Amino acid sequence: MITAIYPGTFDPITLGHMDVIRRISRLYEKVVVSVVMNIEKKPLFDIEERVELIRKAVRDLQNVEVSCSIELLSDFVRNYENPVIVKGLRNLVDYEYETTMAVFNKKLNPDLETFFITADQKYTYVSSTAVRQLALYGSDLSEYVPADVAEAVAKKIEYWRGTE
Amino acid sequence: MITAIYPGTFDPITLGHMDVIRRISRLYEKVVVSVVMNIEKKPLFDIEERVELIRKAVRDLQNVEVSCSIELLSDFVRNYENPVIVKGLRNLVDYEYETTMAVFNKKLNPDLETFFITADQKYTYVSSTAVRQLALYGSDLSEYVPADVAEAVAKKIEYWRGTE
Amino acid sequence: MITAIYPGTFDPITLGHMDVIRRISRLYEKVVVSVVMNIEKKPLFDIEERVELIRKAVRDLQNVEVSCSIELLSDFVRNYENPVIVKGLRNLVDYEYETTMAVFNKKLNPDLETFFITADQKYTYVSSTAVRQLALYGSDLSEYVPADVAEAVAKKIEYWRGTE
Amino acid sequence: MITAIYPGTFDPITLGHMDVIRRISRLYEKVVVSVVMNIEKKPLFDIEERVELIRKAVRDLQNVEVSCSIELLSDFVRNYENPVIVKGLRNLVDYEYETTMAVFNKKLNPDLETFFITADQKYTYVSSTAVRQLALYGSDLSEYVPADVAEAVAKKIEYWRGTE
Amino acid sequence: MITAIYPGTFDPITLGHMDVIRRISRLYEKVVVSVVMNIEKKPLFDIEERVELIRKAVRDLQNVEVSCSIELLSDFVRNYENPVIVKGLRNLVDYEYETTMAVFNKKLNPDLETFFITADQKYTYVSSTAVRQLALYGSDLSEYVPADVAEAVAKKIEYWRGTE
Amino acid sequence: MITAIYPGTFDPITLGHMDVIRRISRLYEKVVVSVVMNIEKKPLFDIEERVELIRKAVRDLQNVEVSCSIELLSDFVRNYENPVIVKGLRNLVDYEYETTMAVFNKKLNPDLETFFITADQKYTYVSSTAVRQLALYGSDLSEYVPADVAEAVAKKIEYWRGTE
Repeated sequence: MITAIYPGTFDPITLGHMDVIRRISRLYEKVVVSVVMNIEKKPLFDIEERVELIRKAVRDLQNVEVSCSIELLSDFVRNYENPVIVKGLRNLVDYEYETTMAVFNKKLNPDLETFFITADQKYTYVSSTAVRQLALYGSDLSEYVPADVAEAVAKKIEYWRGTE
Repeated sequence: MITAIYPGTFDPITLGHMDVIRRISRLYEKVVVSVVMNIEKKPLFDIEERVELIRKAVRDLQNVEVSCSIELLSDFVRNYENPVIVKGLRNLVDYEYETTMAVFNKKLNPDLETFFITADQKYTYVSSTAVRQLALYGSDLSEYVPADVAEAVAKKIEYWRGTE
Repeated sequence: MITAIYPGTFDPITLGHMDVIRRISRLYEKVVVSVVMNIEKKPLFDIEERVELIRKAVRDLQNVEVSCSIELLSDFVRNYENPVIVKGLRNLVDYEYETTMAVFNKKLNPDLETFFITADQKYTYVSSTAVRQLALYGSDLSEYVPADVAEAVAKKIEYWRGTE
Repeated sequence: MITAIYPGTFDPITLGHMDVIRRISRLYEKVVVSVVMNIEKKPLFDIEERVELIRKAVRDLQNVEVSCSIELLSDFVRNYENPVIVKGLRNLVDYEYETTMAVFNKKLNPDLETFFITADQKYTYVSSTAVRQLALYGSDLSEYVPADVAEAVAKKIEYWRGTE
Repeated sequence: MITAIYPGTFDPITLGHMDVIRRISRLYEKVVVSVVMNIEKKPLFDIEERVELIRKAVRDLQNVEVSCSIELLSDFVRNYENPVIVKGLRNLVDYEYETTMAVFNKKLNPDLETFFITADQKYTYVSSTAVRQLALYGSDLSEYVPADVAEAVAKKIEYWRGTE
Repeated sequence: MITAIYPGTFDPITLGHMDVIRRISRLYEKVVVSVVMNIEKKPLFDIEERVELIRKAVRDLQNVEVSCSIELLSDFVRNYENPVIVKGLRNLVDYEYETTMAVFNKKLNPDLETFFITADQKYTYVSSTAVRQLALYGSDLSEYVPADVAEAVAKKIEYWRGTE
């Protein structure tokens, strides 16, 4: 059995991510969505909240589990049987960054392959960054994120405004 | 069972292709190397010769078979169980071309996913085109193609020179 | 009044081209679809046939006319009032090529600006090249070209086969 | 009448921006230079100062007006008659970013087209970022920004130094 | 002493090439402009004509010599003392192609380095291909190629027309 | 004599940088590794520490010296005889950024050329950023940086942790 590891910051998970998860869940017996830390930016949601939102979003996909990793990805994957990393590519900048990471991870763990799939055209303009910006303007998020996430983002923004 | 379809013109198969085949043969139960026609260029080897050279090159890989296709790729894959296309990416130009083809194939066959893997750094400069050019200068091909292919290329060039 | 000149080889016109024409016909008082020669390749349709197919395709758009040019584009546009060139961009390779052409045309004709619009995502994989390849395999072309064009392509391929 | 909306952060406006404004002011009856907020970075000039500097810079162009927007751009443009967005492209990174924004804006406002023009070669290396860096080193800015802006930048840097 | 080898097809040499040659002739004691064959395309000028045109164009540059190579470039350079290859980059497509060639040449000759310089902005749109196309339309070539070359191109086109 | 100036932030110097330094030290009589400030980011090492670490790393290369610059690079180079800037390119994003900087520097100092060399394939995934991230996870750095640097990074991280 191969385990597909789908890593990302998912701050928050979008319908673009969901499309990738659904597509790879049909092609691998087990998929692990793995939330990784991004040291450089203050996140909208903390790591446990992000895991929780993804769990809700993937609850109907039997072979998908969600976890978070505080190790290097190349070490984290060793917890799984025959792991491969799977990443979605939306554009050229993604391609440049992700292929460098793939070489880097293979250097650290020579058996570790990274497979890429192209984001569906409907979702190339959907990013967590875009979602956070739309949320600041109070825009409707229903075409960008799962319903539970839209609600959680709205609450989080409201909470932040209350504490300013 | 998923069948990984690895399509290409393979005129001739290189060590870069062999590296991709070996890597995907460890991650899929069955791999089909599929020689496709390239209508626009006169090939060095005809399609049967190319199939034969690949068969020799992959004879030690139990789960790899070789075939050729005269249909559209999106139709050809229907001959296999749960097919996915796998392609190697060497550079940006590959990326642009192959992601367009992936969208195109998915349009023609909505269940058909294309996965990409990055060529090993050792092989980014190895292409069938480079091999054909080196051959014209009589260069040693042993670092670019399997031994049987090096021999076949030399013979083919000699034959062409004889008939000019 | 500004005249939008939309140049291309259009061999044949696709639904992607049609989408661009429709969008610019709403934003300019006059649009001239201009068929240019491509010296390097043998076309599927000769230049008069291409003009004819485009004329049929745009017959409902009042402010769109069709012509062909045997001059340099930078000279051809001088036949029109306040001309600007408009081109669609599907991807990075288009971008590199077309921005070089824009600089080139401005050098030859300093008042001549080129505006670009991004192809609709539905059409990024639709190209005249793809249409010609699909036609060789006898595929249904109705999602790629206007109905009249699909018919003309089928006839042309049949005619070519008859003369081989 | 079409209104060309030219959005940007303009912190500060450069001679590259001025070249784009001048070129589009010849091709559209009305041009609106629209200063948008950039939430992520602390600006050199606040939004009112930027509007003021642009107003001075464009005072000789009769059909150009300047405004600022605190809404999403796709909503802001609804204040104008037949709006189209016009953006300058200096390089590939601009292209990737701006074409994604164009798709995004069209999604939020389906009638809203974005047209791109290529920056003049003389200005491809001129950016607001470069101007801010040169200013820190006390370099002469006269080839990068309008004279009023050069003076305002020098004063601003002096003021900052005084308050440190 | 380092010898800068500047290889290309130069069919014909342009003012963009001349700019690169002049710039590197100030930084290296010896520059060798090396005309290489391009097997795939029928050239406008044969290899001896191209060498001759370059010789005339560089006659005022004391440390520049011109030669042609029928070997692989990585072998040809062995005729010179401490050779380095120098190439001009006009755009992204050049970058992708030339960096692959640099790796390839270093593989064949591990001491052989390739240095790149960016084409002057004035010349990014000047290519031998553009010159050949302009010539077919009878355009003035004086801003694209040295005067002797402009004349030679005009004669060559006239000769071709006479023989058709 | 030409002086090759190799500028960078070097926070810290990596084996990729060392490879470039070694290669250019064989082709230029004098190489100056020049540490420049990066105003925007808090560095891991301050500028004097970085100079010191590079000095240790290059101590066996007779014609290499190390300095730091608080001026604009285009002014700093005037301290040296016949300066040229040399930069390594790892990928497309480097290419876009560095060619813009080359044009910018030439604008400020018209005699100043920038030469690029391609990073060795072994080092394309090695960056100072990657080193800093690996260090945070306590990973072994010996394949990324010189031994002295690995030690200094470990001490620095330990010190930071002690002061939190």
